[in-house]
Amino acid sequence: MKILLTNDDGIYSKGIEVLHKHLGKDNEVIVVAPETEQSAVGHAITLTDPLLVKSVDRNGSFFGHAVKGTPADCVKLAINELVEQRPDLVVSGINLGANVGINVIYSGTVSAATEGAILGVPSIAISIDTFRDPDFEPAARFARLLANQVNKYGLPPHTSLNVNVPAIPESEIKGVRVTRQGVTRFVESFDRRVDPRENVYYWQCGSTPPLQEDDDTDACALAKDYISITPIHHDLTNYDFLRSLRSWSFTDNSE
Amino acid sequence: MKILLTNDDGIYSKGIEVLHKHLGKDNEVIVVAPETEQSAVGHAITLTDPLLVKSVDRNGSFFGHAVKGTPADCVKLAINELVEQRPDLVVSGINLGANVGINVIYSGTVSAATEGAILGVPSIAISIDTFRDPDFEPAARFARLLANQVNKYGLPPHTSLNVNVPAIPESEIKGVRVTRQGVTRFVESFDRRVDPRENVYYWQCGSTPPLQEDDDTDACALAKDYISITPIHHDLTNYDFLRSLRSWSFTDNSE
Repeated sequence: MKILLTNDDGIYSKGIEVLHKHLGKDNEVIVVAPETEQSAVGHAITLTDPLLVKSVDRNGSFFGHAVKGTPADCVKLAINELVEQRPDLVVSGINLGANVGINVIYSGTVSAATEGAILGVPSIAISIDTFRDPDFEPAARFARLLANQVNKYGLPPHTSLNVNVPAIPESEIKGVRVTRQGVTRFVESFDRRVDPRENVYYWQCGSTPPLQEDDDTDACALAKDYISITPIHHDLTNYDFLRSLRSWSFTDNSE
Repeated sequence: MKILLTNDDGIYSKGIEVLHKHLGKDNEVIVVAPETEQSAVGHAITLTDPLLVKSVDRNGSFFGHAVKGTPADCVKLAINELVEQRPDLVVSGINLGANVGINVIYSGTVSAATEGAILGVPSIAISIDTFRDPDFEPAARFARLLANQVNKYGLPPHTSLNVNVPAIPESEIKGVRVTRQGVTRFVESFDRRVDPRENVYYWQCGSTPPLQEDDDTDACALAKDYISITPIHHDLTNYDFLRSLRSWSFTDNSE
């Protein structure tokens, strides 16, 4: 396969290097990734600034294109301009930190895979459930296995796979669960400060507190030491509510 | 009602001013909006920079808080810090340019409403289908009517309304359609340039070409001169594909 590899932690991150090593065993891998960390950029794209592109040599590990932009920019630019032949697969990761529950919508890692799906290329996002320097090997091995399965079975249109791997030794991983997106979320707090010129500013902080999630969710699978795979798309319609909304009156009788 | 008003075109835009005028007729309206235009930021949030907040006097039209951040930042900061009592409703807009089809996922306007829904506040995003200086009055009047209906009927959890208004005289608007999100999308192209120091960069351009959409979609309603209302949520799970994905093998037999 010809694989486009990207991430949101940036081209110099460890996660992309390990992923490149494993996917490169039996595939042609092209790296187009942000020059710097792009966490929590969601599905942002860059329209008002130029996208600078540099060639990067990761000390013999790989050559790649570093883009001064978001993960979604990288996938768009790669498929439209930088990659000569259309890739067979987009892989985004390995992200430091799980992307489960509502947090998925803030994720640059997932948005890169979504962008691949929008452009008609099967796509996988992969994250590991820790912010500390982990052993990326188990996650990278699983990414390679899954890439081959996606190649074999294919994915439906507009669909990508959001994969989360527990940060534990491979022998302790209990298996794989296909899950739905849960409702675990980043709960923010704000640290108010005043700068030397008397301007008020806030640091956004926050955490993802543990939540009682249903057994079939991404967060629950991860908490129970399973690899979680959620098939995601970008249709945000709440179909369950369509019918009752159609019964509303939209005529102005007040004036 | 107590309404939190925001947008992605920035606190100095015309759309937010007209919306404030109409919603302010029978509601208490608090404005917390980005200091500058934030188009196509999607659901980005700002974690690595401080969020500067300034008080802004829009020449007697209204006072508001200008935030150096994204629309999603504005809603989080407003509800957590700046607004004393929890608002009854979040309204985001009026955005210059339609937010229909796949484009919805790049939209800062829609992400502000989604953020409201995540935080448990009923929310409306409203856009007008032109980038040229339009008459915002019909859209603002409709926003006020809809705000009252949302107050009356309520919205289900995790759900907001994405409203798009045709940019035509009010008398030519044919009515209101409750729609699903279509597949119309921004099709990008890249303009390659070389800077004076021989660095390669690209401008991302693109457009949303007209598409044959099904009759029940947002883009189709808008093209046929109807106001479109789409109920949206943030569950990205592709439920249709869950079962077949569960039949895949995730065991590595290759080595």
